[in-house]
Amino acid sequence: MTAPAALPAVDLELDRTWTYGPDVQHGGYLLELLGAAAVDGSPHPHPLAVSAHFLSAPKLGAARIEVERLRTGRSVSTTRARLVQGGRVCLDAVVTAGLLGAPGEPGYAEGAPPELPPLEQCLSNTPQPGEPRNGITEQLDLRLDPAAAGWLGTPSERAEVRGWVRFASVEGAPRREVDPLALLCLADGLPPVTSALGLRGWVPTVELTVHVRARPAPGWLRMVQSARLLQDGWLDESCEIWDSTGRLVAQATQLAGYRPPA
Amino acid sequence: MTAPAALPAVDLELDRTWTYGPDVQHGGYLLELLGAAAVDGSPHPHPLAVSAHFLSAPKLGAARIEVERLRTGRSVSTTRARLVQGGRVCLDAVVTAGLLGAPGEPGYAEGAPPELPPLEQCLSNTPQPGEPRNGITEQLDLRLDPAAAGWLGTPSERAEVRGWVRFASVEGAPRREVDPLALLCLADGLPPVTSALGLRGWVPTVELTVHVRARPAPGWLRMVQSARLLQDGWLDESCEIWDSTGRLVAQATQLAGYRPPA
Repeated sequence: MTAPAALPAVDLELDRTWTYGPDVQHGGYLLELLGAAAVDGSPHPHPLAVSAHFLSAPKLGAARIEVERLRTGRSVSTTRARLVQGGRVCLDAVVTAGLLGAPGEPGYAEGAPPELPPLEQCLSNTPQPGEPRNGITEQLDLRLDPAAAGWLGTPSERAEVRGWVRFASVEGAPRREVDPLALLCLADGLPPVTSALGLRGWVPTVELTVHVRARPAPGWLRMVQSARLLQDGWLDESCEIWDSTGRLVAQATQLAGYRPPA
Repeated sequence: MTAPAALPAVDLELDRTWTYGPDVQHGGYLLELLGAAAVDGSPHPHPLAVSAHFLSAPKLGAARIEVERLRTGRSVSTTRARLVQGGRVCLDAVVTAGLLGAPGEPGYAEGAPPELPPLEQCLSNTPQPGEPRNGITEQLDLRLDPAAAGWLGTPSERAEVRGWVRFASVEGAPRREVDPLALLCLADGLPPVTSALGLRGWVPTVELTVHVRARPAPGWLRMVQSARLLQDGWLDESCEIWDSTGRLVAQATQLAGYRPPA
């Protein structure tokens, strides 16, 4: 019970559903894949704390998720999931999972959802003509606060982006509601905060940690992401996700690189 | 080069230097042990992003750190380090490491060190008579802001603790200056934020992520730790560490359990 045990690997095919441009996979999408593999068949179906290191970008095509159950306890399980391709580790994650019931009364709560303009005054994340294809914008229905959209003209003074989010309705299929696993995907769903500053460099995630705090209620979620420090090519980003009832449902932090445009 | 490779394991003896009470090892101390094992012999000596899941409490005595180099890149290496004891995984960490030079000018910076009273007006962390022995208080010289010391009488309204910190001078030996590895230890060095609220439950760390942003300058550091939500037995804590020149040198987040006193 307590010794680590390898579970069956998951073979999969990485396609263009969630790519940016021709082949860059969305980090949040990959994290959700690993989270799902980690909790599959476990008595603890909900990721509570997930931390992942992004080592190398996977290519389109066949890949494998190796799964190792490190411990199964009474209230939580801990599992390693690793995305490998051609012997290279692309993404290595550890998932502590449990069972989220109906949330109780907080013993302490601080903060509030970000203040956002009404949906109809926000910017849809549809790519502009001439921009690269972006699978995230096809899968997520994101409505960004124009006051923080520095990439469109006037840079913000603060490294912060915020907006409404839900899954898109893809090709007429029923809209997926956001569940705890999907929060792993959303946690990397906003544009990088550097875009609010009008900076157009590339922001590759190096490490991403997500804490899931509650099962989200149906409906639109609100997200806000901000940074403290961009220095020596490194950037932190902290993200909060609040559900339609005003409850904090996930917190995420990441360390990313910052590579200025050539 | 790119395939994962097992490195020699590190055998060690866990003693009472950093225990709370008779045998509970300090989480930050354990994290630094794993961080040190992960960067040993690497061209990338400084931990940049470290994430760790705490699975089971190690006991005093023999333990082993298993080390696996996942990738060595040009600018960063990624390494897994795992503390095992009797076949049980106690702590599983992934370390992305690099080389920190003299810090450059920030491209963006937000926030400031916590405002603290002068050292002589702060509370030393020496255990009070009747309190359990606490190795942390023997190894770290911590001076806490009395305005946030809810455990001494008047509970704070905010779940926040803050203070000055440096290593203690142990038995007259020269004081160790805080280096990047030591920041992994300090990141779990403050009392839990629940103590500011006057709550006396046990706060076991489940997941701890530390981002090291710069090499700290010599001298006293300032730390602040706060929470957003205590709910259903789970608590988040975010920590910042600032050096004596007013530079942000580390950020940490953790998800912890909260177990009320019996």
